[in-house]
Amino acid sequence: MIKVGVLGATGFTGEKLVDILLSHPKVELSYLGSRTKNKILYSDIFPKFYKKISIKCEPLDIKKAAGVCDLLFLSLPHTVSMQFVPKILKKGKKVIDLSADYRFKKAQLYERLYKKKHQDKQNLKKAVYGLPELFKDKVKGARLLANPGCYPTSIILALYPLLSEKLITGKVVIDSKSAISGSGRKAVIENHYSNVANNFWAYKPFVHQHQPEFTEVLKDKITGSLTFSFLPQVAGFEAGIYSVIHFSCAKKVTKDKLNKIYNKYYRQSPFIRINRKIPKIKDVAGTNFCDIGFAVDKKGFEAVVISSIDNLIKGAAGQAIQNMNLMLGFKETTGLLSL
Amino acid sequence: MIKVGVLGATGFTGEKLVDILLSHPKVELSYLGSRTKNKILYSDIFPKFYKKISIKCEPLDIKKAAGVCDLLFLSLPHTVSMQFVPKILKKGKKVIDLSADYRFKKAQLYERLYKKKHQDKQNLKKAVYGLPELFKDKVKGARLLANPGCYPTSIILALYPLLSEKLITGKVVIDSKSAISGSGRKAVIENHYSNVANNFWAYKPFVHQHQPEFTEVLKDKITGSLTFSFLPQVAGFEAGIYSVIHFSCAKKVTKDKLNKIYNKYYRQSPFIRINRKIPKIKDVAGTNFCDIGFAVDKKGFEAVVISSIDNLIKGAAGQAIQNMNLMLGFKETTGLLSL
Amino acid sequence: MIKVGVLGATGFTGEKLVDILLSHPKVELSYLGSRTKNKILYSDIFPKFYKKISIKCEPLDIKKAAGVCDLLFLSLPHTVSMQFVPKILKKGKKVIDLSADYRFKKAQLYERLYKKKHQDKQNLKKAVYGLPELFKDKVKGARLLANPGCYPTSIILALYPLLSEKLITGKVVIDSKSAISGSGRKAVIENHYSNVANNFWAYKPFVHQHQPEFTEVLKDKITGSLTFSFLPQVAGFEAGIYSVIHFSCAKKVTKDKLNKIYNKYYRQSPFIRINRKIPKIKDVAGTNFCDIGFAVDKKGFEAVVISSIDNLIKGAAGQAIQNMNLMLGFKETTGLLSL
Amino acid sequence: MIKVGVLGATGFTGEKLVDILLSHPKVELSYLGSRTKNKILYSDIFPKFYKKISIKCEPLDIKKAAGVCDLLFLSLPHTVSMQFVPKILKKGKKVIDLSADYRFKKAQLYERLYKKKHQDKQNLKKAVYGLPELFKDKVKGARLLANPGCYPTSIILALYPLLSEKLITGKVVIDSKSAISGSGRKAVIENHYSNVANNFWAYKPFVHQHQPEFTEVLKDKITGSLTFSFLPQVAGFEAGIYSVIHFSCAKKVTKDKLNKIYNKYYRQSPFIRINRKIPKIKDVAGTNFCDIGFAVDKKGFEAVVISSIDNLIKGAAGQAIQNMNLMLGFKETTGLLSL
Repeated sequence: MIKVGVLGATGFTGEKLVDILLSHPKVELSYLGSRTKNKILYSDIFPKFYKKISIKCEPLDIKKAAGVCDLLFLSLPHTVSMQFVPKILKKGKKVIDLSADYRFKKAQLYERLYKKKHQDKQNLKKAVYGLPELFKDKVKGARLLANPGCYPTSIILALYPLLSEKLITGKVVIDSKSAISGSGRKAVIENHYSNVANNFWAYKPFVHQHQPEFTEVLKDKITGSLTFSFLPQVAGFEAGIYSVIHFSCAKKVTKDKLNKIYNKYYRQSPFIRINRKIPKIKDVAGTNFCDIGFAVDKKGFEAVVISSIDNLIKGAAGQAIQNMNLMLGFKETTGLLSL
Repeated sequence: MIKVGVLGATGFTGEKLVDILLSHPKVELSYLGSRTKNKILYSDIFPKFYKKISIKCEPLDIKKAAGVCDLLFLSLPHTVSMQFVPKILKKGKKVIDLSADYRFKKAQLYERLYKKKHQDKQNLKKAVYGLPELFKDKVKGARLLANPGCYPTSIILALYPLLSEKLITGKVVIDSKSAISGSGRKAVIENHYSNVANNFWAYKPFVHQHQPEFTEVLKDKITGSLTFSFLPQVAGFEAGIYSVIHFSCAKKVTKDKLNKIYNKYYRQSPFIRINRKIPKIKDVAGTNFCDIGFAVDKKGFEAVVISSIDNLIKGAAGQAIQNMNLMLGFKETTGLLSL
Repeated sequence: MIKVGVLGATGFTGEKLVDILLSHPKVELSYLGSRTKNKILYSDIFPKFYKKISIKCEPLDIKKAAGVCDLLFLSLPHTVSMQFVPKILKKGKKVIDLSADYRFKKAQLYERLYKKKHQDKQNLKKAVYGLPELFKDKVKGARLLANPGCYPTSIILALYPLLSEKLITGKVVIDSKSAISGSGRKAVIENHYSNVANNFWAYKPFVHQHQPEFTEVLKDKITGSLTFSFLPQVAGFEAGIYSVIHFSCAKKVTKDKLNKIYNKYYRQSPFIRINRKIPKIKDVAGTNFCDIGFAVDKKGFEAVVISSIDNLIKGAAGQAIQNMNLMLGFKETTGLLSL
Repeated sequence: MIKVGVLGATGFTGEKLVDILLSHPKVELSYLGSRTKNKILYSDIFPKFYKKISIKCEPLDIKKAAGVCDLLFLSLPHTVSMQFVPKILKKGKKVIDLSADYRFKKAQLYERLYKKKHQDKQNLKKAVYGLPELFKDKVKGARLLANPGCYPTSIILALYPLLSEKLITGKVVIDSKSAISGSGRKAVIENHYSNVANNFWAYKPFVHQHQPEFTEVLKDKITGSLTFSFLPQVAGFEAGIYSVIHFSCAKKVTKDKLNKIYNKYYRQSPFIRINRKIPKIKDVAGTNFCDIGFAVDKKGFEAVVISSIDNLIKGAAGQAIQNMNLMLGFKETTGLLSL
């Protein structure tokens, strides 16, 4: 049993990490760090874990956490992780960072988007972007893993095969819908039940920080004339991201053709499901799957591809554990198929 | 057109008051007071009011508000209203207080429940408890009206005829379910969408402050051996209170008998509907109605009565406007039937 | 008081028509027709109407209905209305048809989309497409009014000013989200609570019958190179359509510029609200408003326009009554502002 | 690996059985029977199972099913199971019946409640009522197991210790709230999203068939003067039963005292959690736990006990698998703790 810890264990993502790691057959959850809940039983904070876990929250004490654990998950606010990562690596321990701090190769881009100086440029280069479907070999060798954003996960997985095959021309419209949990466990009026229930709204049009993230990851595949228009929206489902990608085809396609392409790229990917039916959020909610479906108009030059994930699992905690499995030499699916 | 104002216009109840008053044919909404939103257009705070109201929020300036208006609604936190009420009355204006500050005849009981010294004992005696179905004449003459709590409204209306007829014996169990909006527009984690959606829980068992409220109102009707056990619960519907009253009958009853009794007491009450079917929350959500239904076991000695209201309307803002109608000499239903 | 009737009074749209007409100050609801609920009190079918309406459902007897009423709303399944319309017109009565039967000028297009021979081609030419913001004068003179579809209402209102100003170039992507009530009150497993709650899915990609509808209405404004890609989706909010229109601009625009354009076209339209903020479903749910908002990327050549309506009100029953107001010479907003 | 099958695999309970059994480490899902979905891939009916299960639905062919499997789950409508059970037992195979057909020792009671002649009285006596917390030894030896109803599970677990300790006196009020899924996957208007969302209602007051079920199970513990009043209600949460039991105490109690009693009875029960906090539905949704909490009024003679379960898991499929574990000699928690 390999010992792992979660720093930032009381946010939505931290809680989900704990939930999944508890049933993982190869690791032992050995450190739960929290800024505010020091010495409180984790199951007293979240009674749903009673009889499942009996350890207490500890402070965000990197020295102690890295002393106890072989691998740490950082589920901390953006700009906080980079203060901890160098110390963990120096101790010889592995780290999976779920913030944006190590997702960009260029500090400059990060600094512009997150409005803070990057304090660990040295390790930035070593960080591996943890999308195992595309970068499995790098993930296996990673010591510092930057876990992708939720929207980028849903978008990159849908776009990568199309871009690789040069199937897209012109403007790509990405219309994404997310559960409110994506914005974190924050006590603000916007998150109040009465504001979210039976509501729906768009936010940050043209300026969401996830557009530069997925664009950078895909940049080798993007040829000259392609542009992206990305609109994030909040929907009232409890869990999920539903990304609809509207695009024009560079050559005539059919549903069969798209099916073949996706299967070619994802044949070896246990968590990608290419569906003949249109994906629904409920088919993936609570799982680590990414369902991809598509439709083509009758002339064959207009298409939509839809990708559907659980925002806190494949879009965060589940993918982090998938990455952990690869980094620690386990089977990729360990502990993730019974969700 | 009589000029009215709302102090505390940005809470759930204040917003609902504004919403209903805007369509009221006999009053003009002339002052919206808020502690925090000074000089901001009300429709900028709540875009749903754009093109419906064009006035700005003002500070909680009693002098100014009472200068402009003939009647003021106080939709303020408990213990705040009593600082304002004497000044409004002194100006010769009428006031409808939606807090608990004037609901109890005895300051002592209030002080124990709300943990604050009562600062306006003088006016306490003059306040009328605003349940128009039971105290219509007093309401008509009121200058200071204490608007009932949401749970007490649903409970008193259901219990009053039964108690008056001495139909109940032994313990009365009141199992009530409320929308989360009953706890106010507060930015706390407990109100977060992810906590409330698909959830359900009880709170404050045996100690909720609304039990003494409805007990005091009904006390003349309560004979020796009766006891009450009240359990409030939070349900995930957007609006409503659903109070189920389980009781044993002092004499044999039938559904028909109960039907007759309720009709006898509420024949003149335009907002009480005695249903042969079991009430549902959705039948009253968005309205000022209180639906009452009931069932009797086959032997005729055990029964349940169910009362269903919209917690922010019949349980707060709608009832306040029903009271206003009576206090100002309008027809009781004015502005309330088209909800 | 003018007498009006609703045929098909027990569907979602019929119920909403009844709800709004009941509070309308200038008409009297005089006939409720239903295929299946003959002689049953309307309030026994929908207890929420108890104490609001006391009439019974009648059969779909056109002769009788047209005898009693001056204007009839047909809230019937597509392909049924056209059997009734000629008889109503022959009786000299006005009719507002909420089905698709009279929305298309060319019977052929209708027949291809709804897979049924058109049985009343004669009256097709006389029918007025009832979007009062664009065709007010025609609506005023209409004797047979075809009430627009829900998606087309949200889409046409958003697109019309942009197309009129020739602001759009290339492909227009329309990503729309609707409440499940749009598909009617049907007892099918797809509408089951457990399927819809916390779910989200796309349907009928590229083949939805509402695309030809809005394209035909806008055809005079559509210049050569424009194409449309429309994707309808089901969201879990109770009421609403949220249409996001992604497009490229033929010339550089700003938010201010768009604001001016929309205000120019809708200055006289009481139910259109041009918002500086991004629309939310909850701002329009339960109302007859259409909220339109927009965003432009920093270079000024990519934009999104969002239009938000209540699918059963501005998208159906409310708009029908807005049309009725014009057809009967009332003020356009009568009975609709207090929703 | 022991081979098991599910007959009635496409209802809510059948689907949940399949979901949990798929991750069970000791059994192999080998037969999925359905009346209507013959020869269709299970993952084509429920795309969420794609990449998790690749077998097809078969007809309800008992001979074949019992030939392939060592144990069969019958997730069939009441009155259907009893036609199949004798054949399965005759083949020497074990059976867990999730209908009510074998829950009553006396055929007469069953016949009165379910309005059908019992066709397998012989096996009725051999059937074991599968509440493992109370009847573990019998369950271990069962060949025919009657899986308890959802309400009874939540109620019996809460009442058993109190009744055993003779703590209750007088009338017991049981106010239970259930997810709509408890009524099965039926295409009826009452289950439509628009009827259930934001709604709440009581049904079958005093006549629900689950009252005789829990009364019979508890009858040895019920002394003379005790009576029960049970009210089932439908709430809008997706999964769960929340049973509140209001009672008067035969002797003075405290929270600590109740805590000790429950711990005494359930110390060995891995799925019962005695909480100091009041249970919430979300703490048990998606799990096989039954959370029990309680409160006592300050005088110590009035109390409420609350029990909270997932209606489809501890209330149906999860409990059935817990029973299977015991019947097959596995650890009670196998395959159930990682839910």
